[in-house]
This record gives sequence, structure tokens and C-alpha cells, in this order.
Amino acid sequence: MDSEAKGTPELMKATMQAIVKTDAGPGAQICDVPEAQIARPDQIKVRVQATSICGTDFHIYSWDRWSAGRVKPPRIMGHEFAGEIVQVGDQVEHLKVGDYVSGESHWVCGHCQQCLMNDRHVCANTRILGVDVDGCFAPYVVVPAVSAWKNDRSVPPEIACIQDPLGNAVHATLSGEVIGRTVAVLGCGPIGMFAVAVAKAAGAAAVYATDAHDYRLALATKLGADAIANVQQTDTEHFIMEQTRGKGVDVVLEMSGAASAIRQAMRICRRGGRVALMGIPVLPVELDMAEDMIFKGLTIHCIVGRRLYETWDTMRSLLASGRLDVSAAITHRLRFEEFAQGMQLMRDGTCGKVVFTMP
Amino acid sequence: MDSEAKGTPELMKATMQAIVKTDAGPGAQICDVPEAQIARPDQIKVRVQATSICGTDFHIYSWDRWSAGRVKPPRIMGHEFAGEIVQVGDQVEHLKVGDYVSGESHWVCGHCQQCLMNDRHVCANTRILGVDVDGCFAPYVVVPAVSAWKNDRSVPPEIACIQDPLGNAVHATLSGEVIGRTVAVLGCGPIGMFAVAVAKAAGAAAVYATDAHDYRLALATKLGADAIANVQQTDTEHFIMEQTRGKGVDVVLEMSGAASAIRQAMRICRRGGRVALMGIPVLPVELDMAEDMIFKGLTIHCIVGRRLYETWDTMRSLLASGRLDVSAAITHRLRFEEFAQGMQLMRDGTCGKVVFTMP
Amino acid sequence: MDSEAKGTPELMKATMQAIVKTDAGPGAQICDVPEAQIARPDQIKVRVQATSICGTDFHIYSWDRWSAGRVKPPRIMGHEFAGEIVQVGDQVEHLKVGDYVSGESHWVCGHCQQCLMNDRHVCANTRILGVDVDGCFAPYVVVPAVSAWKNDRSVPPEIACIQDPLGNAVHATLSGEVIGRTVAVLGCGPIGMFAVAVAKAAGAAAVYATDAHDYRLALATKLGADAIANVQQTDTEHFIMEQTRGKGVDVVLEMSGAASAIRQAMRICRRGGRVALMGIPVLPVELDMAEDMIFKGLTIHCIVGRRLYETWDTMRSLLASGRLDVSAAITHRLRFEEFAQGMQLMRDGTCGKVVFTMP
Amino acid sequence: MDSEAKGTPELMKATMQAIVKTDAGPGAQICDVPEAQIARPDQIKVRVQATSICGTDFHIYSWDRWSAGRVKPPRIMGHEFAGEIVQVGDQVEHLKVGDYVSGESHWVCGHCQQCLMNDRHVCANTRILGVDVDGCFAPYVVVPAVSAWKNDRSVPPEIACIQDPLGNAVHATLSGEVIGRTVAVLGCGPIGMFAVAVAKAAGAAAVYATDAHDYRLALATKLGADAIANVQQTDTEHFIMEQTRGKGVDVVLEMSGAASAIRQAMRICRRGGRVALMGIPVLPVELDMAEDMIFKGLTIHCIVGRRLYETWDTMRSLLASGRLDVSAAITHRLRFEEFAQGMQLMRDGTCGKVVFTMP
Repeated sequence: MDSEAKGTPELMKATMQAIVKTDAGPGAQICDVPEAQIARPDQIKVRVQATSICGTDFHIYSWDRWSAGRVKPPRIMGHEFAGEIVQVGDQVEHLKVGDYVSGESHWVCGHCQQCLMNDRHVCANTRILGVDVDGCFAPYVVVPAVSAWKNDRSVPPEIACIQDPLGNAVHATLSGEVIGRTVAVLGCGPIGMFAVAVAKAAGAAAVYATDAHDYRLALATKLGADAIANVQQTDTEHFIMEQTRGKGVDVVLEMSGAASAIRQAMRICRRGGRVALMGIPVLPVELDMAEDMIFKGLTIHCIVGRRLYETWDTMRSLLASGRLDVSAAITHRLRFEEFAQGMQLMRDGTCGKVVFTMP
Repeated sequence: MDSEAKGTPELMKATMQAIVKTDAGPGAQICDVPEAQIARPDQIKVRVQATSICGTDFHIYSWDRWSAGRVKPPRIMGHEFAGEIVQVGDQVEHLKVGDYVSGESHWVCGHCQQCLMNDRHVCANTRILGVDVDGCFAPYVVVPAVSAWKNDRSVPPEIACIQDPLGNAVHATLSGEVIGRTVAVLGCGPIGMFAVAVAKAAGAAAVYATDAHDYRLALATKLGADAIANVQQTDTEHFIMEQTRGKGVDVVLEMSGAASAIRQAMRICRRGGRVALMGIPVLPVELDMAEDMIFKGLTIHCIVGRRLYETWDTMRSLLASGRLDVSAAITHRLRFEEFAQGMQLMRDGTCGKVVFTMP
Repeated sequence: MDSEAKGTPELMKATMQAIVKTDAGPGAQICDVPEAQIARPDQIKVRVQATSICGTDFHIYSWDRWSAGRVKPPRIMGHEFAGEIVQVGDQVEHLKVGDYVSGESHWVCGHCQQCLMNDRHVCANTRILGVDVDGCFAPYVVVPAVSAWKNDRSVPPEIACIQDPLGNAVHATLSGEVIGRTVAVLGCGPIGMFAVAVAKAAGAAAVYATDAHDYRLALATKLGADAIANVQQTDTEHFIMEQTRGKGVDVVLEMSGAASAIRQAMRICRRGGRVALMGIPVLPVELDMAEDMIFKGLTIHCIVGRRLYETWDTMRSLLASGRLDVSAAITHRLRFEEFAQGMQLMRDGTCGKVVFTMP
Repeated sequence: MDSEAKGTPELMKATMQAIVKTDAGPGAQICDVPEAQIARPDQIKVRVQATSICGTDFHIYSWDRWSAGRVKPPRIMGHEFAGEIVQVGDQVEHLKVGDYVSGESHWVCGHCQQCLMNDRHVCANTRILGVDVDGCFAPYVVVPAVSAWKNDRSVPPEIACIQDPLGNAVHATLSGEVIGRTVAVLGCGPIGMFAVAVAKAAGAAAVYATDAHDYRLALATKLGADAIANVQQTDTEHFIMEQTRGKGVDVVLEMSGAASAIRQAMRICRRGGRVALMGIPVLPVELDMAEDMIFKGLTIHCIVGRRLYETWDTMRSLLASGRLDVSAAITHRLRFEEFAQGMQLMRDGTCGKVVFTMP
């Protein structure tokens, strides 16, 4: 009785408001849910200070085919965050309460062949925060200590929380040589925009950016693009060949997932050049492999996730040193209650990165 | 008068019998043609001791669409050879009469960006011996000194002449790590067979080979394949997944050019693995890029030609040291007059490498 | 009382006989010590089936300057082992009782910059089994689960236990290209011998080995050396230049730690070649850096430990596939009680690898 | 007779004033010498527009031990230049009169193993302009067409002429990863200064520079150094450890050749880091290889020359795009007659790059 009396107020305290995918269909809701609790001694509990919307969140919100096949509601959404550790499990040694961390959204197993070979970004048993387990669109999130990244204090939460997608851009851009090279970025959603900035920071001679939205192209310019083209008005091949006097670019970063852009990626890349494929096409893509790829001796890097933790280490260094500034990509700072508005911005393509900052 | 008298017989002597693509259509003929003559001071003249048939020769003989668009008859065919230098141009310094050489069939310009960056195998101005200029199916051939490769005397002409396609296999196989890796070779024409042997010489843990012809699979076994499958009886994915306990292989060398095999190449490759694409598909190929490539983080190397001359240097060393023995791949030694028979063998797939040895 | 009665025999059982460095001076003793016990939930307990003597063990036994500065007696010696898991901590998920494992002797922290960048072999906080913590010259050893490597069942314990030093050889040899290259191995202690075998398995064109002991050179020949020289009778530079017709070798693996050999390593390496330095010189070494290193454009890899776990993965594959056979390097199989004899063999240089196999 | 009459005035015209090492001893003189003439059909003749002094020129001028052993007077000095082609040999196809070129000072053979493997910067038969053959401290210079580099018109001659040493800096700096890394440059002569700028252009997080001259450190700051230290007042190790909070730097570029700096290079480099050695020590150097190099797992790149022509291609791109601006390093523009003054500046260390511009 006594213990029940003590227990009850505790249980009442231990709820939080989170953005939850409640049903197998479009939409999501702000719900009261039990506050995230450490369940294993190798976990940490984080008070979320900033969290941001990824295209994946938008897919889950819209409930596309991929989401329907993978997500099991109810599920707290969100996987991009930065915050402060409020509790650590018994076995956690290198992190402590008060540390300022972000999260690697891909929780990897550590013992498949890929993990053993330090290619953990392609772990065979990856679980994703906010997709396969409850996410960070909430005041608190619990993650394994090995999935947390200790941030430099000089990086503000609204930047620290976007390192997961920024890491995609860093991984894709730096998967080969950039300094002195010409780079085309096809598709200027947030990851494409970031890639523009990363390529410039890495010493690219010129960065050419394409997209279907002038809004995003304007952002790409702010982030350092030397020339831009709206693919609804300008043919990408024509644009690139004009910029490069017919030679094509050294590096193509395909960030759109559009079948036409993937085909163009191969055509605008110079003989012996490099193409990084990161955008996800929804349907199979037909390619003229003989002429556009094989005879040209291209190298194609298929990019997923970020390298744990080489990519994060590079990011920390670039952000902390001020060599990489992607703050212009953050176009909207919303409150949690405005999440439907955030999703609308994603749908319209009239945003860069949309961040929820926490009180 | 006297000199004219001497001159006339000389001019009459200066003819040779060559295999010539005489007309824009199927077939080829043995013709009397003027003996090849040095036309520039940086060229050499070689007495051909052995020459071999490439798939490209067969395409030109059959007069497929590619040949019809590129080859301008009359043209002496052939680009794979080994022989002895009988004359050198005035500017040639590092080669001399009597040297034993083979030829790199890709004549490169030396001053395009690719050549300047030592990616000469993707030179923007490549001309191919026996395709764009007169070839080596003849007793004599004239080539630029920079396109000749000085052989080790320990390598016999019938092996020295196949270094051009062997180089394709070396380039493809060694474009990434092989030692301790599992390797699938899809398509066991000569280059595929060679790739089996190269992968074994490089320390591959296991090499799995597929083809539609049992004849070729038997040769692949002779060259070192650990397991084989005839794709007309066995599903490639099933075969590879069984061999690798469901993991897929670390490395795929696609040598067939079949659209189905290219798709399978992506599917049988483990997450984070490497695919080398060398077989030339005749039509566009449809790929499930999201699931089979991007989410798996594959690296795709499109392979054309051989590196000038890193690949040749490695080949020389492997052949001269006996670490690589591909003699089992030479299944037929013919005389020039039997070239139609050679082409028939190519059509039937009942041969490995067909070599013409010269008297 | 009852529980005490049960407890007492248990406590009495819980001792084991181990080879212990008891005092800060030369020698070691077989002692009764408490049986190793799991102290943290992320550890495993292993019944040792085979364990082998490393040069480091010999240094500790002899109590050289390095040992005196680092080892704090009493300390159970030994860091190379293979065995069966008999108990796992509560947090261990991917290993289970009965698994057949070996141990990575370098226990790394997992969170320094090197660990985060997957260069864990140079972790800033490395602790070494049998040096900084109690080792495996005992029937049981307790190690962190992340320091255990699951072996392929086809590899016998006496081979599985030598993977730690074999990994040194694999790491050093494969730190650059080997296929088709000429390789010199200076110093044929166990790691040098192993390097000979690894270089051959990786397709080296020729491997030249030197040592001061004919016994070891004979073993190097068994393991694949193409030519050998005893440095007490033959000048190393003369030997290598003769073998390579004055060119020098492509790759030098310096495994002796002798100052003279390190200097020769630079001189026998061809322009643009690679030198791996793994042998540990006891005193500073004087080098003619201008002529022997800088003007030649050498690449020098300083080698410590093995890559966790890329190197282990490659080893597993090479051993399980039979591509690498180093069994000839195991020259002595002793019982624990004979450890002083093992140390004497190490001193005399009349052994390859000395293994203790357990009943 | 008539032709002789015409010939004589031509021969009289065909002289030029050049800076000549006339005798085997200190000094050099401006002399009338025969105007450089094309002697082979693969050469070009260039009207020099700008030429600059290298440390090597200063060594020859001072007649140090190295010069005395290598240079055979009389010899026209100088190897760094930019100018316009005024004549091309009969076999030169890709260059023409009027082209704007610079020269790679290392004339390579093209057929040794290093050249065949595209490591031409370590060609076994290198001849150096202004050292082994007559140089470019003259109105005209004749060089092999393959040693000329076609410049972008946007790069002015005084920058185009310094690409040979700038190429050293690019080669050294980009021999490994730079983006996001901390870099120490030891020695800020012209190549060191350039390396500071290149590292910044490549995205280094921070560049720390040391030298014994405040004049040069001030220039290093202009070229982008984040922190500097004069080694006569500050201990290099203390400086770097303070800047990096005890971790050491990721990359060290040793440009001084001082034995003490080479030793420090190893000590200030973090575990697993990279050291590029480019400065030439005059005497053997003693290193604590065990502690400072091997146990730390360092990678050491010995740097000589520049990659032909990957380094040049990168330079062209960086200069033409404006990503790399090294104009601040050009501190003195002299006339030919003032060459003794230029040498005095070199001796005093009170200069960056000294350029002779031609009328």
C-alpha cells in the first residue's frame, strides 16, 4: 500500500508527449506515452534539445509502400537528435550524465562480417531509431551508449541534431577524391544541399547543383554552389556539358533518386570519373550500361548511412573548426505542436532542414 | 635503271597475306596486301609470331551493329599478338631490333585529361588496333613504340599474345582486394576463365564460376574454380547462396554481359562488397537499384581495357614467376588458313583461347 | 553450515596451475592461483586448449628493460590462446558456452579517436593480456567478449592459438600490394616465417628471406621462401641486388628489429617501394634518410598489432580455405611443466613456434 | 656564298644572355651564350616569361657538396619557368606555337619500371633541368614536349612559373587525407608556405606552422596558418601538444630537413597518423623508432618531386578556380641582372619566392 502510494505519483510523472505513428496509415499524432526508460545496462537516456525531420520521417508520415512494409505502429517517430545525457546504464563507462551527445540512427550488431570489417554502415542486422525502435520526437530518448556521439560543445543543438543526414552527405562526398575536382550534385534536398557545402569545404574546384525547386536551388547557392540549374527548365546534360566545356564532371553525387537523374549521372560523369548514388529510386531503373558506364570505366559508390565513426569524427572536426558551415540549410525552427506544418513543408519542397527545438 | 631493276622485285616482295575485313558485311578473307611499313619515326615493325582471336574479332567477322557503326573496311583484323621487332623508327630509343614484344591494343593519345592523370585505359581519343587501324592478323604489324610491351623471354609467344585479354582479367580482378575473399565469376569466356586463374593466384579463398556451356565450365575448373554451375540448369543466386551459406560473395566479376547476370551480380554480392562489370550488355539493363545496390552499399567498378602499364607489369611478373599459369585456356592452335574454323569455334562456345601460330 | 559444506569443495576446486611471473627479475614459476572468474557482465571465461610462446613472453621471462618498466608481478603470463567458452557474462549476446574462440591480445578502449576511426590497433589506451592483466598460460582465462574471436571449427587449436602473431604478419604483409611483387623478409622468427607464407599466399612473385640462424632459414624455405641468405655469411644488399638484377625489391618486411637490417631495408627497397617496419629496435637507429629514403620516394608503414578485426577476418578465411598453411612453423609442442625448456628454445633460436597443448 | 651571307647574321643573332654556372666553385655569371635550339623532333622551344629561384639553385650557386658531385659547369641554371612556345619539333602534335606552358623539371625516361607503373616522379633515370641539362635562367629554353605543361591562361606567369615547387607541396600534402585533419608544417621556406595554403584549401581543420625565421612565419600566417611558432623561442612538441590538447596532429609535413625537426615530426604525430618527409637532411638522422614510430603505427611518406601529371592537373584546377591563392608567397620580383641579390635573399631567409620576370 505504502509502496503503491509512492509508486503512483512516480508512474504519473513518467509520461511524456511524443510524436507517434499510431496507426498503419497516413498521419501521426502527439500522444502521452510512458517516458523512455533505460532497459539495459549499456544504454543511456538523453534529454532531447533539438530534433529534425528527415525524408524518412516524411515517408512514414505519408505511409508509403516502404513504410507500410517496415514500420509497426505504434511507434515514436524521429531519429535525428542532440541532447544531454540524464542517466547512464551500469555498464556505460565512457559517457556520463551531462554529456552533450547526438545519435547515430543506425543501431548496428557489432558482430556480423560487415561490423567485424569496420563496414558497420552496412551491418546485416541494422535497426533504425524511429523506424524499428521508438525514436526521438519526444523529450527523452533511450539509445545504446555505442550509438551515441559526444559532441563538441561549440556546435549548437540545432546543428548537432542534423549530423545524421549531414553524415550521409559527408560519406557520399568524401568516398573519393574531391580537391580540385568538378562536382555535380543532382537533387538539392537537405542531403544534397549539405553535399554542396561539404564538396566546397573539401576544395572542389566547382560545384554544380540541380533540382526541380528554385527554393532549394537558392539554398544550394547559399551553401556554395557555383552554378545551378532547375531541371524543369534546363536539361541537366546540356547544363553540365556547357559548364565543363564538354568534358563532364569528375564527380557526380546523385541525391534525388529520380530514374532520369540516375541515368544522367552516368552521362555527365567524365571517363574514369566517380558517381555516388545515394538517392533512392522507387522503381527499377533502366541504364545504358555499355556506353554510359562500362566503356567509360566509371566507379560507382552506392552510399547508405555514414561510416561509424570515421564520418562522425570528420564532421566533428569540420563543424568545430568552422570549416563547414551548414547553418543556412536550417530554414525552419518549429515547436512540436507544429509538426504537421513541418510535414507540409517537406511535401512542398519549400524548406531546407526543419528543426524542432525543445524548451 | 639498275636501282629500278632492284627496286621492282623489292616492291613485289613487299606484300603479305593478311586476314582482311573486305566488305561491310559478314565474313572476312585472306588477302594479299602491302606489307606493313613504318610511317612515323616513333613506330616499330614487328614480325608476328603468335596472334589470337578476341570476341571483338568475332563481332567484326559477324558484322554486328557495333562493328557496322565503327569499322571502315577494308581493314586488317586482329589486335592480340606477340612477336619480334624487325625495324624501329628513328625516334625509338628504348626498343631495338630483335626485342620480343606484345602490343597494347588501345592506342592512347597521351594528352587528354585521363592520360595526364595516368588513367590511360579511359583515354578520350583511344584508337584500337584491328578496329580503327590495320591489325595483326598478318605476318607483320606496325605499332607505336609506346604501345609495345617488352616481354620476358621465358613467356612463350602463344601466352605472350593473349596478354591483352588476360590484362582485362587482371585489371578487373585486382581492382579491389582479393586475398581471403570469395569471388564469383559470371561468364567463362576466355576473360572469365582468366579471371578465375588470376583470383586464385591472388589468394582468393574460393572462386565460383558460372556459364551456359559445360565446355567452358570444365576449363574454368582446370584454371582453378572451386565450384561451377551451368546457368541453364542451376539458378545462380541459389548456387552462390548455397556455397556461401547465405552471405553472398565478397567480389563479383561480371564477364558475360547478360542482363540477367548483371542483375544477379548485384544480388549475390554481400553488403559492402565489390562488383566489377566487364561484360558488355547489348541493350539497356533494368536494375533494382534501391534494394540490390544502394541499401547494400556496393562498390561497382566498370572495367574497360587494362591499366597502361601497371596491369602489364603485374602480368609480366605473374607469368615470368610462374605464379599464374593460364596455358590450359589455350584450346586451339590453328594456321591462318583455318581462321574460318576459329570463328566457328567462337560461335559455338566450344573453345577457350584460339591462337594462330606463325611459321 | 550446509552451504559452507557445499561451498568449501567449490572453493577448493577453484584454483588452477598457471605460469606466473612472480617477481621483478628473471624467471617464472608454475603456481597454484585462483581460477579465473568472470568479473563483469561483458566478459567470457575460456578453457584454454592451446597457448603459445611469443617473443614478448620471452622478454618478460628474461626481464629486459621494457618488461621491468611495464609488468607488475605477480602476473599470469601468456596472450596467445585458443579454447572453448565455458561461461559468458550476462551482457554477452553473440557468444555462447561451447563456442571455439581465440583472443586478440590487445584490449582496446573503444572510444579514443583511434578506436572511433577504426584504427583500434593503435588505441591510445591499449591493455595487453599477459602483460597488463593476467594472461592465458593457464587452464582458464577470462577476457572481454569484444576481445574474443570465434574460430572456424576446421582450424585446430594449435593453429588457432597462433593467430595473434600470425595476424601481425598478415597486417604487415598486406598493408600494401603484394601480388606479382618481389618481397624481402628480414628476420625469420615466427612472425617473419609467417610473413613468408602470407606473401606467397597473396601471390608474391618471389620472396627472399634473411636471418642469422640456418634453422630458421630452413623453416622459411618450408614456408615458401624462394631464396634465403644467412646474414652472418652473406651481405643482405648483395644478396637482394643479385636476386633482383640490381633493381631492389618492391616490398621489404623488416621483422628483425636490428639497426643494420632497418638500414638495409631502406637500401634494398626499389624507388617508390614499400617498407613495413615491425621488428622493434632496442636503441635509436641512424638512417641516411636523404639518399636511402626521401630521394627514393619510399612509403614506410610502421606496424603494430593487427587490425581489429579486418586482419582476423582475412586470417580466418585464409586458414579455413586452406590457402594459408603455416603448420610447418610449429616446431615444438610442450606440456606446461616444460615451459623453461620452451624459453631455452626461444633463447637459442632453434625453434619456430612453441605451443603448449592442454589435456 | 649567298646562303652563308644570310647565315652569318642569323648565327650572330642567335645568342642570349643567361645565368650560367661557369666554374666548379661558388657564384654564377650572366653570360652571352648560344640561343637554345631544338635538337630533336620531340622538343619545344619556349620564350621564358617568368622564372624563379629554387633552393636547389641556391645550393648550386653556393656550390655545396651535393652540387659539386653532380653539376658539370658550364651549365645554364634554373628549372622553374613559364612562357610561350615559339617553336615545336616535327614530331610534336599536341602543342603548338603560342601555347602557354610551364615545365616539369624532372625529365623522366618513360620506360623504367617506375615510369611504366606511373610512378614517374621516382624514375630511375631522371635528369633535372638546370642541373643535368641547360636550364631556364635565360630568355629561351628547350625542353621535351612531354616535360611541358599547358597552363590555363588565367594563371599569370609569375604564378605559373612556381608550379614545380608548388607541386612538391601539393604532392606532399595530398599524399593522404587532409579534410578535417590537423596538420603541422615544420619549416616554412617556399614549399612549406605553399603546403600551409594547400592544406587549408583541402579542408584541414587547423594548420600549425613552425620555422626559425619570423619573416617566414608571418608569410605562413598570410597563407593561412592558424597558429605559428618560432622554433628558436618555442619547443615544437610543447607548441603542438598545447594546440592539440595533448593528442598530437593527424598529419605532419616535414619541410625543413633539420634532424631535430624530423625527430619531432614523429613525436608530434598522433598514433596512426601520417608523416610526409620532404626536407632533405644533410647528415644521417638518429630516430627512436620503437617508441616514436613503430608502437604508434605511423605511416611515413617520403616525398620527392611531383606526380606526372596528376599533381599538375590538381594544381591547374586549384589555381584556375581560385581555390588556391599563393600569390602572397611571391615576395620579390627581380630583373635578371639582380640575381646576386636574389641569392642573398635566399641566404638570409628574408624572402618567400623570388621571381625573375622577363621583359
